Amino acid sequence: MDDRIKQALIDIVGKPNFTDSLIDLVSYSYDASDHDHRPAAAAWPTRSEQVSEILVMANEHGFPVTPRGAGTGFAGSGVPVRGGLVLDMCRMIRIIDIRIPDRQVIVEPGVVYADLEKALSPYGFFFPPDPASGKVCTLGGNVATNAGGIKGAKYGVTKDYVLGLEVVLPDGRIMRTGSRCMKSSSGYDLTRLFVGSEGTLGVITQITLKINPRPTATRTALALFSTLKDAGRAVTGIMHSGVIPSVLEILDENTIRALSEHGGMDLPDVTAMILIETDGYTDTEASYQMSKVAQVLRENNATHIQEAASAQEAEKLWKARKSAGSVAARLRANNVSEDVTVPISKVPDLLTRISETVRKYDLPFVIFGHAGDGNLHPKIMYDRTDPEQVRKVQKAVYEIFKLTCDLGGTLTGEHGIGLAKAPYMHLEHDPVALDLMRSLKVLLDPNNILNPGKMNLDR
Amino acid sequence: MDDRIKQALIDIVGKPNFTDSLIDLVSYSYDASDHDHRPAAAAWPTRSEQVSEILVMANEHGFPVTPRGAGTGFAGSGVPVRGGLVLDMCRMIRIIDIRIPDRQVIVEPGVVYADLEKALSPYGFFFPPDPASGKVCTLGGNVATNAGGIKGAKYGVTKDYVLGLEVVLPDGRIMRTGSRCMKSSSGYDLTRLFVGSEGTLGVITQITLKINPRPTATRTALALFSTLKDAGRAVTGIMHSGVIPSVLEILDENTIRALSEHGGMDLPDVTAMILIETDGYTDTEASYQMSKVAQVLRENNATHIQEAASAQEAEKLWKARKSAGSVAARLRANNVSEDVTVPISKVPDLLTRISETVRKYDLPFVIFGHAGDGNLHPKIMYDRTDPEQVRKVQKAVYEIFKLTCDLGGTLTGEHGIGLAKAPYMHLEHDPVALDLMRSLKVLLDPNNILNPGKMNLDR
Repeated sequence: MDDRIKQALIDIVGKPNFTDSLIDLVSYSYDASDHDHRPAAAAWPTRSEQVSEILVMANEHGFPVTPRGAGTGFAGSGVPVRGGLVLDMCRMIRIIDIRIPDRQVIVEPGVVYADLEKALSPYGFFFPPDPASGKVCTLGGNVATNAGGIKGAKYGVTKDYVLGLEVVLPDGRIMRTGSRCMKSSSGYDLTRLFVGSEGTLGVITQITLKINPRPTATRTALALFSTLKDAGRAVTGIMHSGVIPSVLEILDENTIRALSEHGGMDLPDVTAMILIETDGYTDTEASYQMSKVAQVLRENNATHIQEAASAQEAEKLWKARKSAGSVAARLRANNVSEDVTVPISKVPDLLTRISETVRKYDLPFVIFGHAGDGNLHPKIMYDRTDPEQVRKVQKAVYEIFKLTCDLGGTLTGEHGIGLAKAPYMHLEHDPVALDLMRSLKVLLDPNNILNPGKMNLDR
Repeated sequence: MDDRIKQALIDIVGKPNFTDSLIDLVSYSYDASDHDHRPAAAAWPTRSEQVSEILVMANEHGFPVTPRGAGTGFAGSGVPVRGGLVLDMCRMIRIIDIRIPDRQVIVEPGVVYADLEKALSPYGFFFPPDPASGKVCTLGGNVATNAGGIKGAKYGVTKDYVLGLEVVLPDGRIMRTGSRCMKSSSGYDLTRLFVGSEGTLGVITQITLKINPRPTATRTALALFSTLKDAGRAVTGIMHSGVIPSVLEILDENTIRALSEHGGMDLPDVTAMILIETDGYTDTEASYQMSKVAQVLRENNATHIQEAASAQEAEKLWKARKSAGSVAARLRANNVSEDVTVPISKVPDLLTRISETVRKYDLPFVIFGHAGDGNLHPKIMYDRTDPEQVRKVQKAVYEIFKLTCDLGGTLTGEHGIGLAKAPYMHLEHDPVALDLMRSLKVLLDPNNILNPGKMNLDR
């Protein structure tokens, strides 16, 4: 990137919102995935018009632009793999409007998930997806990757809450999609085309999100199992029971051991654990659902079922679950964290097959995840400086994707495709669907300037 | 359409699945809207491959193809406005699979909404949208128009339940979108591009729908108001209260009078009525929510609040509400039925402004609708043979759309754009968004053979 272009970028965003210092560029070469590539520069736009001007320039001069949130993604969606400019959206942080009776908020993409939670809390409302990285991840990143979290079983994921967007298209045009209404059948659903598009079709500069009243009663329980199969069957049985828990999480024995040995938790030595939360407006409702769940747990040979006696105790359980990924990550220098997802009835199969598969490669791994929506997180720890371990991980990951797709599953339930899963898109998608995705990319971004190299979309 | 083409169509679908008899073509020239145009022929495909062959032929010979469900649409989406072939999907009626633990069903597009309800009932599950035409409308039509219904406030609309589709693209390629998983962040959301696209981008030949366990407890109540404004404010207040009723319907005085005088209902002479249902797994939960709602109703000057004493009484109320449209329609030979939608807080404004606007034109009208998601149904009755009345209706409808969009609303909450609202797309949509919709249409259907003339998409 020559100095003329850099100066033009400074002219657009202002000197304090531009950087090409080495330390910044090294930071911007990574996200939470195992991929990295150094950009030539980075900018912090503060208005849609700046994004627009930058994209017009990128088309003229042919440099790639990679939008980025907090960099917590596991798939490399924010890694500037072809260099060029990183567009860090973290300085667009206004919560523009909170409209409680309309059940919606309007935010800029750099707002951190937890900050929105804090702002909504006094009204008794919340934005449900609740990603594990909620304390740092941005809402723009949530929308771009269609992020999910532990409330997915009952409350769905980000896409279920996006009512409208302001998007800067690759050619620089600023577009408004959707509406501020709870529903609309007016024209094509452009909003959803951009949700989960990982910054390859446009740069999101404003988001209208639906919000929900927060349930006022919850019950939390844990159940222990001596086989993975029983735990998996309990999940299927719960779905059959007609109760949809607000949280239904599963942890395998390796996860439990990691939390005990390295996470300061006092957990029993069992093969599988299920954590359940039920909710409602009344204690009766939450308890009734939990009693139905408990019956299913017993029928599926739970060796122990324990309800949290207090909110503090429940909080401790969720903290343990949320820290599972980071605790396990400490076992080696590097790790890959996947988010394969299958139809719920296939969770028992997926659990046992991933376990059998990864065990062959003799690397530490854990499996935990959102069993209630079929989403598991196998995490394999390794040392990137050992080529043998790298080869093993690559093989194991391929096998996990293959067996997931063979079970009718999807490569990613909530992280996105990015770089990490790009080579495997054909395992999941119909060739006609892949072809249409590529045509959409060409239609919107003919010069391939916006986050190129991702999602296997290049023609 | 020449005989050679007709014979080729017969060769594809078989003689009993083709018609060009006058009586059939007259039937196929209408839907439930005020628009009509006679096609040259109609076919009932029974397999995706037949649809594919027909579309390839249509491209070769340049004839329009208009897919159609049960013809219950109010927007003219299924009217073959440029002639050509009607593709009646009503013979693709298989419920292919019911997968309770996966929370999903796989159906063909011709399955009637009520038939799916019946099939799911023994499992305690349901497909929530519940359109008023549920006894006859097809699921393919529901998906094509993103249909809603009285459960929208809490349970959303059709788009919130479509996990995947099989679609025949305009060029004849058969494509599978989405997956059988509860969530996925894998690639662009092609599924949603087709939901609500009114048969202009592809022909839907298979649908995977998410289903929900049916709540086991409900409470129903009605509240009467002496002003529209109070009723509207009560709606806003309920949203503020943190309770989302499963049903929150509003009926204006004209609707109430029509139901009393022509619908055999015994209703008091008041300005507005609200019908509310709350639900849950336990009576305690449903009652608790209803008590919170009742408090809001009282605070907003409800003159009378009455809970249904039994399931039968509740059923009677829903029947009354669902018949409101057809009862009112009897007042004149013709009617237009709109489905304008605004942010929930704007419901009081929309109600009073529509009332003031339509009153000027001295035609019978009613307003009722799904207040809980901001969706109102103004219905104006008139006589199509009187040019003066036609002019009045056109003016009134334009004014309704204009004031809706001025309130930040959408032209259509659940019926679709079709022909009826095509001229008004610019009132709602950003020009860049409209331009992108047209580009998508050209990308997928360059010869404009699939349901041409709809949604103001022609370049």
